[in-house]
Amino acid sequence: MSAAENPQGIETNKKMKALVYHGPGKKAWEDKPKPVLVKSTDAIVKILKTTICGTDLHIMKGDVPAVTDGRIIGHEGVGIIEEVGSSVSNFKKGDHVIISCITSCGKCEYCKKGMYSHCADGGWILGNLVDGTQAEYVCIPHADNSLYPIPTGADEEALVMLSDILPTGFECGVLNGQVKPGDTIAIVGAGPIGLATLLTSLFYTPAEIIVIDLDDNRLHVAKTFGATQIINSSDGKAVEALMKLTNGKGVDVAIEAVGVPATFELCEAIVTAGGHIANIGVHGKSVVLHLETLWSKNITITTRLVDTVTTPMLFKNVQSKKLQPKKLITHHFMLSEIMEAYDTFGNAADKKALKVILTN
Amino acid sequence: MSAAENPQGIETNKKMKALVYHGPGKKAWEDKPKPVLVKSTDAIVKILKTTICGTDLHIMKGDVPAVTDGRIIGHEGVGIIEEVGSSVSNFKKGDHVIISCITSCGKCEYCKKGMYSHCADGGWILGNLVDGTQAEYVCIPHADNSLYPIPTGADEEALVMLSDILPTGFECGVLNGQVKPGDTIAIVGAGPIGLATLLTSLFYTPAEIIVIDLDDNRLHVAKTFGATQIINSSDGKAVEALMKLTNGKGVDVAIEAVGVPATFELCEAIVTAGGHIANIGVHGKSVVLHLETLWSKNITITTRLVDTVTTPMLFKNVQSKKLQPKKLITHHFMLSEIMEAYDTFGNAADKKALKVILTN
Amino acid sequence: MSAAENPQGIETNKKMKALVYHGPGKKAWEDKPKPVLVKSTDAIVKILKTTICGTDLHIMKGDVPAVTDGRIIGHEGVGIIEEVGSSVSNFKKGDHVIISCITSCGKCEYCKKGMYSHCADGGWILGNLVDGTQAEYVCIPHADNSLYPIPTGADEEALVMLSDILPTGFECGVLNGQVKPGDTIAIVGAGPIGLATLLTSLFYTPAEIIVIDLDDNRLHVAKTFGATQIINSSDGKAVEALMKLTNGKGVDVAIEAVGVPATFELCEAIVTAGGHIANIGVHGKSVVLHLETLWSKNITITTRLVDTVTTPMLFKNVQSKKLQPKKLITHHFMLSEIMEAYDTFGNAADKKALKVILTN
Amino acid sequence: MSAAENPQGIETNKKMKALVYHGPGKKAWEDKPKPVLVKSTDAIVKILKTTICGTDLHIMKGDVPAVTDGRIIGHEGVGIIEEVGSSVSNFKKGDHVIISCITSCGKCEYCKKGMYSHCADGGWILGNLVDGTQAEYVCIPHADNSLYPIPTGADEEALVMLSDILPTGFECGVLNGQVKPGDTIAIVGAGPIGLATLLTSLFYTPAEIIVIDLDDNRLHVAKTFGATQIINSSDGKAVEALMKLTNGKGVDVAIEAVGVPATFELCEAIVTAGGHIANIGVHGKSVVLHLETLWSKNITITTRLVDTVTTPMLFKNVQSKKLQPKKLITHHFMLSEIMEAYDTFGNAADKKALKVILTN
Repeated sequence: MSAAENPQGIETNKKMKALVYHGPGKKAWEDKPKPVLVKSTDAIVKILKTTICGTDLHIMKGDVPAVTDGRIIGHEGVGIIEEVGSSVSNFKKGDHVIISCITSCGKCEYCKKGMYSHCADGGWILGNLVDGTQAEYVCIPHADNSLYPIPTGADEEALVMLSDILPTGFECGVLNGQVKPGDTIAIVGAGPIGLATLLTSLFYTPAEIIVIDLDDNRLHVAKTFGATQIINSSDGKAVEALMKLTNGKGVDVAIEAVGVPATFELCEAIVTAGGHIANIGVHGKSVVLHLETLWSKNITITTRLVDTVTTPMLFKNVQSKKLQPKKLITHHFMLSEIMEAYDTFGNAADKKALKVILTN
Repeated sequence: MSAAENPQGIETNKKMKALVYHGPGKKAWEDKPKPVLVKSTDAIVKILKTTICGTDLHIMKGDVPAVTDGRIIGHEGVGIIEEVGSSVSNFKKGDHVIISCITSCGKCEYCKKGMYSHCADGGWILGNLVDGTQAEYVCIPHADNSLYPIPTGADEEALVMLSDILPTGFECGVLNGQVKPGDTIAIVGAGPIGLATLLTSLFYTPAEIIVIDLDDNRLHVAKTFGATQIINSSDGKAVEALMKLTNGKGVDVAIEAVGVPATFELCEAIVTAGGHIANIGVHGKSVVLHLETLWSKNITITTRLVDTVTTPMLFKNVQSKKLQPKKLITHHFMLSEIMEAYDTFGNAADKKALKVILTN
Repeated sequence: MSAAENPQGIETNKKMKALVYHGPGKKAWEDKPKPVLVKSTDAIVKILKTTICGTDLHIMKGDVPAVTDGRIIGHEGVGIIEEVGSSVSNFKKGDHVIISCITSCGKCEYCKKGMYSHCADGGWILGNLVDGTQAEYVCIPHADNSLYPIPTGADEEALVMLSDILPTGFECGVLNGQVKPGDTIAIVGAGPIGLATLLTSLFYTPAEIIVIDLDDNRLHVAKTFGATQIINSSDGKAVEALMKLTNGKGVDVAIEAVGVPATFELCEAIVTAGGHIANIGVHGKSVVLHLETLWSKNITITTRLVDTVTTPMLFKNVQSKKLQPKKLITHHFMLSEIMEAYDTFGNAADKKALKVILTN
Repeated sequence: MSAAENPQGIETNKKMKALVYHGPGKKAWEDKPKPVLVKSTDAIVKILKTTICGTDLHIMKGDVPAVTDGRIIGHEGVGIIEEVGSSVSNFKKGDHVIISCITSCGKCEYCKKGMYSHCADGGWILGNLVDGTQAEYVCIPHADNSLYPIPTGADEEALVMLSDILPTGFECGVLNGQVKPGDTIAIVGAGPIGLATLLTSLFYTPAEIIVIDLDDNRLHVAKTFGATQIINSSDGKAVEALMKLTNGKGVDVAIEAVGVPATFELCEAIVTAGGHIANIGVHGKSVVLHLETLWSKNITITTRLVDTVTTPMLFKNVQSKKLQPKKLITHHFMLSEIMEAYDTFGNAADKKALKVILTN
């Protein structure tokens, strides 16, 4: 039965294991039908390695209403092509691939502008609106534009970091913040995304990188990654501390990598005249924008859902050893141990966890 | 007595007339000492034509605490050089000049970056921290960088609009908003600044220009200036009206030219994914930034105090008839009638006033 | 028989008329098999209107060796979709479309960068490596990315100019030249491409547009299109004339729209310090680059094969009446009169011809 | 006697030692009058450390006709302010400063655009049109904009590299070439300028840096500086070697750092479609530009005389240890040994010399 003849993606009787969301607080590692090709642009990928994202924790809490009972979670991973639809030309069975967290058709208005995050037939749908990567197999829509080839010999574990976290830190934080050589920048939040931002900010050689967080362990890690200064903001005096470090001037770029009002307003308070605030955080509430002081400060504020347009560039810098994504990986599990992996990742501070790798 | 010998700018016994602020609600057209050169970089300019800015009305209400009793108001105008300090090389006695609202030294960190608005020894100081242009004479600090030459035969009345309003609309609205050919843009506020923004947005040939205001007369003027659509927002349904005009898509660029929370939040509601909000308005209060929806919309928000770096370019387009600033001028007075001119400008809606010209 | 079942594009017995190249100097309007779908990404388009390009004249002279005997010529036109392959999702039978001169797959390295001209499975292939548009029907590869929709009521004749000439002038000349408001620009060559460049340069409101050509009629047309100055270079003194017009300064942007060494070197001679030379011309020979004078002049030289990435933007400005492509159309023929149309276009100076429209 | 009273800069009877050009092939370390303030914007700087540039060798050969008999050579160095004119406000006696090779007034059309190299009253004049820095003292025109402050404790020897060589490599090579993370770049020429380009290209983290030269020692140095590949082009097969290293694709950025036709044409041969050629070399002859192949390759070619606008940024990265200019220094002399220093620098290959430091 060809793909064209299976328009509804009728389930075959083959089974696989997957991590399934069953409403707030409920998840299970259970049997699901193995996915089949539905459209000619799909590919079926056998997962080799995947990981868990902070967004997955939000989903599990019920914070993402679009995710419904029965959905397989996960939007990151590397795998091996099992089967491709008849229109797929960039990949064939047996190819190793990076799965992008963003699905892009390549032919809508947004994709043509490189704004894949808003693809008319894609965007962030994996592990959200369609079944995701925390499973033995996944069906990737628009495979030609949503997968990236892995050459023989590459370090596939490192490349899992290219699915989401590195392009997110780089595009939403570093590129949108317009980090330049000689800049003084602040990264607010030293979780995996903040640290991915730190690693990729080094591409532009800022003079000073100040990292702000509540967790001393993460700040310590930030130092080893290249932060020139760290500030523990638990005393509520981060603004004063930063202003002291910058001789009262503030920072050229303030990158918000948390997603709550307090950290965004911290960015407003530390950005210098002519500077940038680059928001990465996923916000659930509005924030107060102090235009009564900022209106005349010539600042730029940006928001962005990652487009993953920089994945090929990031890949080149991984291959040339200019970027070492494995620094972000702290724990390893078998995919079948995913419930335990969630426990570890869900208690990141206690476990000193950044990213976990799940191997199928 | 040379400038170098008069370091404190000791007043001579020559007098002139000037518009003087005497605390909230109090102003007078009265005698003041004629200014003298203090620094070698100063120039004394005899005012030929000046105007009144919305900011002057704010000053008069007491909204700008930096302005103190006795200050001569005004930061716009054209004039003729009366005398220059020994270091001034771009100008000489008798030259006709545009006076920029922004004073720039040309040699501080900010000036070197083209951010004259934040000049370490300048910025917006005229009619604010030093005496301004609503007078028969004015002393212009850093004359070489803060004045622009007017060639013989130019229309000097039109060039008064280059002191502030046209660079403000162009830099803060059009350039910061990154208006591009084919764009759909909205200008919120059709006062003089909004209309200056409209005139200069035409430089980039947007496909659609939607102007939103409460005043039908100003909206009518906007139409004659090139707006393709107008929306009277007095019914509180501007968002719905705009979304209808744009097939539910919103605008590529939303330019805020009012300075109150409601108009800024209107911009947040109408900007499309990937779009820009360019703030021009002078805000007295914070606004609510809806990051809970905007975080993933790939938008850019900018603020700016005009730098006047584009004055030479604007001048070229005035000379080549590509920009006609006189469209912004609705009323004429003698400088000695300035109290009456304030009445007219202060009741702009009733008087159908945009910019007034005061001739000395 | 479906597309998938006809992998070799086996010819059916249906016939159509087409303009066929038979070696240097030989062409015929003759019967050819009507094209059929070969790949699932193809579309068959019935031509409504097409035109002739200067490149077609070069092909006919034998200057483009890649074009072989039997090839149907033409890479411009609008049409109506007759049939689409199974993977085509942006278009369906009956849709009216603009055919881009550039074919793009949307999924190769170059397409992802917006450099469609270098598409790994496309680029300029129509009427070159595959059969083109000077025929009753044409098969368009990668239809989703290589066609653009025409809404009901649009002026389809005008839109033929969006296939090639307007994006070429705009991308290679105006965008690459970085034409800015207030600039003084020169366009060297007032043929159809030079005039398309002129029309689209107006999007950025340069202060002065100087057009240089050998033909007084074309220079006259340039004036009516918005040129502020014209220079007939037949006396060999174009550099002197231009320098006089620019007070010895030269131009901010010099756009080469001819394709011979003399006109490129003219651009080298007239570009000002800090300026741009944007090459549009198709060159058959090398040119002399005077680095002995240009090395210190901070100039930028660009080359480009049109990518047609700006077609959607150009379309918006046609729809909003900001661009009027019909100005470029001087002659009309029925498609069956194409041999006569070639005579007219091939004697453009005598016939005062710019673009001809051929209606099917 | 104040500066204002000495408009002709009448020589005092104080003497100093200086390196003086006396026509092609003739130079002397001899007595010259110590410079005095002429204009109110001048500063007299006592040289602490200076160096010799490749351009100085050209001057000595007679290749720079503007340099006349009696001129003190040199345009690089650090020093201590001895005296400032009355208009100088950024510096005072006793301040330590970097002397920029480019003099800028800060108030002409070009300076306002950041194009200091073309300053209407400056540009490259030091050691060219006015006396230079290979002397005990130098008079620096437009001191406020042409000197940069050195804070206490900075490594002044390293900062001599900021006068010319590092901004030249960075601005003309790296910035103009638009080097980006992930790029494959080639630097043609591994002399001091090529190596300065290499050091500053690292700011943008290209994936591959291929350095091409004739001298194995310099290529070895390039490797230690961060080149990922080196090619000795003495066999005339550099193009083939580079194409092999890049899988036939060529480089994203080709930087010319020699100044002869062969190396520029090498850049033409190795640049990939969509790539950049950034010229740094000082050319004495025209080159052949192969537009017959490049017209359709979407390339950008740039030329530039250094503007030194990036000096403050480079300084920040030196202070933060992100850039280590001392790597470029191979030899040390006392200023009084300058004749010997010229011998060493003039035989750079034999002496394995890059930059020499002369201490006063």
